Amino acid sequence: MISIEEAKKLVWEHTPVLGKEKISIFDSIARVIAENIVSEINVPPFNRSAMDGFAIISEDTKYATKEKPVLLEVIGEIKAGETKNLVIENGKTVLIMTGAKVPVNCESVIKIEDIEEIVKNGKKYIKINRYMPKGENISTKGEDIKEGEIIIKKGTFIDSAVFSMIAYLGIDEINVYKKPTVAILSTGDEIKNVGEKINEGEIYDSNSYSIYALTKKYGGIPKLLGISKDRPELLDRFIKKGLQCDLFIISGGVSEGKYDIVVDVLKKNGVKLIFHKVAIKPGKPTFFGKKNKKIVFGLPGYPVSTYINFDYLVKVAIYKMTGRTIPEKFKFSGILEKDVENKGDRDEFIRMISKIRDNDVYITPYHSQKSGVLSSILYSNAILYLKKGEKRKKGEKVVVEYLEK
Amino acid sequence: MISIEEAKKLVWEHTPVLGKEKISIFDSIARVIAENIVSEINVPPFNRSAMDGFAIISEDTKYATKEKPVLLEVIGEIKAGETKNLVIENGKTVLIMTGAKVPVNCESVIKIEDIEEIVKNGKKYIKINRYMPKGENISTKGEDIKEGEIIIKKGTFIDSAVFSMIAYLGIDEINVYKKPTVAILSTGDEIKNVGEKINEGEIYDSNSYSIYALTKKYGGIPKLLGISKDRPELLDRFIKKGLQCDLFIISGGVSEGKYDIVVDVLKKNGVKLIFHKVAIKPGKPTFFGKKNKKIVFGLPGYPVSTYINFDYLVKVAIYKMTGRTIPEKFKFSGILEKDVENKGDRDEFIRMISKIRDNDVYITPYHSQKSGVLSSILYSNAILYLKKGEKRKKGEKVVVEYLEK
Repeated sequence: MISIEEAKKLVWEHTPVLGKEKISIFDSIARVIAENIVSEINVPPFNRSAMDGFAIISEDTKYATKEKPVLLEVIGEIKAGETKNLVIENGKTVLIMTGAKVPVNCESVIKIEDIEEIVKNGKKYIKINRYMPKGENISTKGEDIKEGEIIIKKGTFIDSAVFSMIAYLGIDEINVYKKPTVAILSTGDEIKNVGEKINEGEIYDSNSYSIYALTKKYGGIPKLLGISKDRPELLDRFIKKGLQCDLFIISGGVSEGKYDIVVDVLKKNGVKLIFHKVAIKPGKPTFFGKKNKKIVFGLPGYPVSTYINFDYLVKVAIYKMTGRTIPEKFKFSGILEKDVENKGDRDEFIRMISKIRDNDVYITPYHSQKSGVLSSILYSNAILYLKKGEKRKKGEKVVVEYLEK
Repeated sequence: MISIEEAKKLVWEHTPVLGKEKISIFDSIARVIAENIVSEINVPPFNRSAMDGFAIISEDTKYATKEKPVLLEVIGEIKAGETKNLVIENGKTVLIMTGAKVPVNCESVIKIEDIEEIVKNGKKYIKINRYMPKGENISTKGEDIKEGEIIIKKGTFIDSAVFSMIAYLGIDEINVYKKPTVAILSTGDEIKNVGEKINEGEIYDSNSYSIYALTKKYGGIPKLLGISKDRPELLDRFIKKGLQCDLFIISGGVSEGKYDIVVDVLKKNGVKLIFHKVAIKPGKPTFFGKKNKKIVFGLPGYPVSTYINFDYLVKVAIYKMTGRTIPEKFKFSGILEKDVENKGDRDEFIRMISKIRDNDVYITPYHSQKSGVLSSILYSNAILYLKKGEKRKKGEKVVVEYLEK
């Protein structure tokens, strides 16, 4: 048995990175960027007014006070979208709209609400009764993004924020890593497909569906192969199909007797086993192998084992294939509400429920930690990783990992 | 100006719930369940062996010790998927595979690894040297899920875990709420579409794309209308189109002068304004209106304002339309690494970066909090909600909301 850390490392090392393709921004959500995105523009591209107001040469307001306000003549108006590089004379100002380009020699903008306008000899003036410091209500050129800067690194997953940023930079086509095709096979004489009538002694195939949903979530293209009975000649047919995809995930059939059948057929088909037991609970009988560039996982039949092992191991392979860095979980900490102890012979992923009360995070283990109890995934929102022999007491602070679903 | 809480309440009250439709499980990821899902089965559906081993009548092992082991005769084998209700006699046992149905009168399973097999007079026996308590290595019928129990409540979002659970229950078709169609319009003379050449004074339309991505994420069908110049006759055409969708989101055009044009054209098209200013930063000039069952939002032009206001307000409407409960953010707490103070006249959403060091979560404000700085969304992972006038000191514990992207 190897540790989860060793297992992750082996998966990372043995999994190839897939090729690249150019796609439209519209198709890029949940893809991974295959090039550093360097900004070709400054954002803002010019000194931009953050308010509707009047553009000011700060120097003009140096001695302005309530008692001795300064008058500036209003000589025009700048709307957003106007491109000219205006220069104004001392003692003058222009009305400027939010988002518009500030005149070259103005350093601040006074809000329209803070201003008294007056008319004298047919000319319009504004009255200013305080010093306007440089930068007030102006977003300076390049303040957010500088031309030539790397804004998004190669290997970044395109979530809503990254997607917005790509548009923000004006980019309509990008290079992304190809999506892996993922073959999904359930095995077991007792497994029935959803929608079918079930007999006593049989159970529904939820594993194919967990793997289907998680594959989609992490950016693969799932292909459900179906359910194979535990017979070598049937398995062989499915395994030949599965090996046509970049990634092949088999669930079930990893208890002692069945395991041998699946592994035998895989070996006969040229798959080399890299590891076949991991010191974790749930998920001990997980195996990992490869044939040329094709990657194969065998996940235990229990639904929680399949879910957790996908999340901690298969995900590593998908991340590698799609050019990402090794996945890291979002972590947070809180106060444990019950003693927990790992009395087993393997490290354990304990499903936890975290809640905020007053200012504190409280974390409680889900009442059942059995591998067959899928509701432990449904109702939990965090994982406490407890090493073999580790013990944590009620009231202690523990760090947990957010359970993304 | 109304508070964000009042604004949320108004959005929730005024937004209708959409209809339902029946779909295949395969199309159900990221949809919302429109009926309580009651289990028609027990899971496990029978007392199930959790190991490869031998099924035991606990009583038979009552006096078993190392010195005086008990011999049980092996009379057969049960594979997973076999449906018969076996009863065995005292003094006998059967080999049983993981996942298989335990004989009616057996109460525990001893692991195959823990057993010595012997042959005597041509018969096979196992030797047991300890008492096997009831329940050991057995998952009892209904332990995970009981027949007749509500497993997934109406209004539940179908994430990977819920999706797996639906399959687990054997359900292949479910009722879900319809997805809202969401029209997206950017306004502004200075706004250019991605991929186009940009002139000085102009900026790219990132808002349509933020709204597009977030709409998809939260379960709407985005329809990009494009960019309208700030002219009533053009706006009118776009607004008529936008009002054909369930939800219509307009970004930009909400600074003082432009705001009036957009609102005027909306009113002429029969839209009733419910609110038009919210006491939050960023996002003050947000407006919300409706026409019959159609919902309209106007979001400020700045990219951060659009992003945050979608996340805190538009999301409420999408949740209501799709039959969910009012959205709640995932919260956690940590130690503040810098003083923060809200000196403004509105409550503020401060973009924060949270990190784990040793056992503690440390939270720092992103260096720029301007509404124009989209990188503050890209690089942050949490939001600190700071009330008007509120001050938090370095070293204090603060509760923040996870920034989903």
